[in-house]
Amino acid sequence: MHDIILIGFGNVGQSLFKGIQETHEFRVRQIFVRNKDHADLPTSVRVTDNLQALESADLYIVCVTDDAIEEISKNLPFNDRLVVHTSGSSAVSSLKDQTRAGVFYPLQSFSRSKEVNWKEVPLCLETTLESDLTFLKKLGRALSDKVYAINSEQRKKLHLAAVVANNFTNHLYFLAESICKDHNIPFEVLHPLILETATKIQSMTPYEAQTGPARRNDQKTLNSQLQQVEGTALDKIYKLLTASIASTYEREKL
Amino acid sequence: MHDIILIGFGNVGQSLFKGIQETHEFRVRQIFVRNKDHADLPTSVRVTDNLQALESADLYIVCVTDDAIEEISKNLPFNDRLVVHTSGSSAVSSLKDQTRAGVFYPLQSFSRSKEVNWKEVPLCLETTLESDLTFLKKLGRALSDKVYAINSEQRKKLHLAAVVANNFTNHLYFLAESICKDHNIPFEVLHPLILETATKIQSMTPYEAQTGPARRNDQKTLNSQLQQVEGTALDKIYKLLTASIASTYEREKL
Repeated sequence: MHDIILIGFGNVGQSLFKGIQETHEFRVRQIFVRNKDHADLPTSVRVTDNLQALESADLYIVCVTDDAIEEISKNLPFNDRLVVHTSGSSAVSSLKDQTRAGVFYPLQSFSRSKEVNWKEVPLCLETTLESDLTFLKKLGRALSDKVYAINSEQRKKLHLAAVVANNFTNHLYFLAESICKDHNIPFEVLHPLILETATKIQSMTPYEAQTGPARRNDQKTLNSQLQQVEGTALDKIYKLLTASIASTYEREKL
Repeated sequence: MHDIILIGFGNVGQSLFKGIQETHEFRVRQIFVRNKDHADLPTSVRVTDNLQALESADLYIVCVTDDAIEEISKNLPFNDRLVVHTSGSSAVSSLKDQTRAGVFYPLQSFSRSKEVNWKEVPLCLETTLESDLTFLKKLGRALSDKVYAINSEQRKKLHLAAVVANNFTNHLYFLAESICKDHNIPFEVLHPLILETATKIQSMTPYEAQTGPARRNDQKTLNSQLQQVEGTALDKIYKLLTASIASTYEREKL
């Protein structure tokens, strides 16, 4: 049985706690929180609000906000044990003074209201010492079927890609909903299509999955829609994305 | 039992045929195709390649390409029967010379390889005569749980919204995949997040569902990502969508 200590107990910490306690080879030995009045603390595990009182363990998982990672790691009363953070946008080097540092980044949005199915969560792992990766992978595989070695530079790019594929698409949903609202169309009419598109690119490439007037170079529809968006918030976005799709498929037409 | 005649037998026609034959109150009485050598024609139904030989029926569904709707409808040997097309981007008026015209638009992408679950397909209905809508709704409800009355002007806007929510998001998936490819990150790492985002807006509004640095006004992350995309194909798209998200949530910050 391997011992893990959680430093921080927010959404990620609480989800990790449940996930780890369900494995056979790992257990949470102790939890550090700044404030022991924390409402959701488990009774089955020792809790401390004093970094100096951290016990000995195989792994320390720092699941605090990005801004607090550096300060916490500098104040740990050791620097020769395996310490990882869970942040997508912080480099492994933000764990200051720790020679055995690493990252255990679950690429998923965590919320209190929704139970996480760890088996489906992609885990992006990194360690500064090659020798620590084996152990981290063991934990990863005990939790999830999707474990990836991703270094700090790659994780930075992955975060950028996630902003594009997640935050930007959600904003397009918002803009589509605005069009619907303005014309008394229930947005739910579009729900199945939205889900189908997101599902489709899980089994074929987005390049193949692309449909629509910009890909077909259907000038009649494009012109009609350009007229409709003229002067609205969508004007520039429509033009830019249409041009980007058109240039992606330009070669096909030659 | 109500009789329906299908005019055209492409992806939509074939899907409609299967769906209609499974209802209890409707049946396909005849199919018109330009070329009777068509590979996928059913043997159980009469087929003709002559518009003048169309039989009498309660409803004629024109499921041909957008460009052919007008010509077909002009050449029908009657103009007093209910004739509908299935196009999202054509007005009901494209059914020339037909006094009892309508639209039966299934908002779904049809492909030969994938069976359609009609119960889940939103059906957008319109008729020029109010008295015909009841009949069309009856067919709609026999096929699907999601039936909407959408007029030609609304359908035009719905098509625009669909381009934004479907074609544009798919292109963002493509751009995200490109970032991953450039840095040897498997795109599948992002699959669960993409599906989660598309699922989330089915139970909450896209306004509420929005996350990310642009909504949080996290300048540190935004600046870092702007540097990363500088001079790439993503440069303008990143700036424009970030600005659009920021302005959507500006009021919140006041």
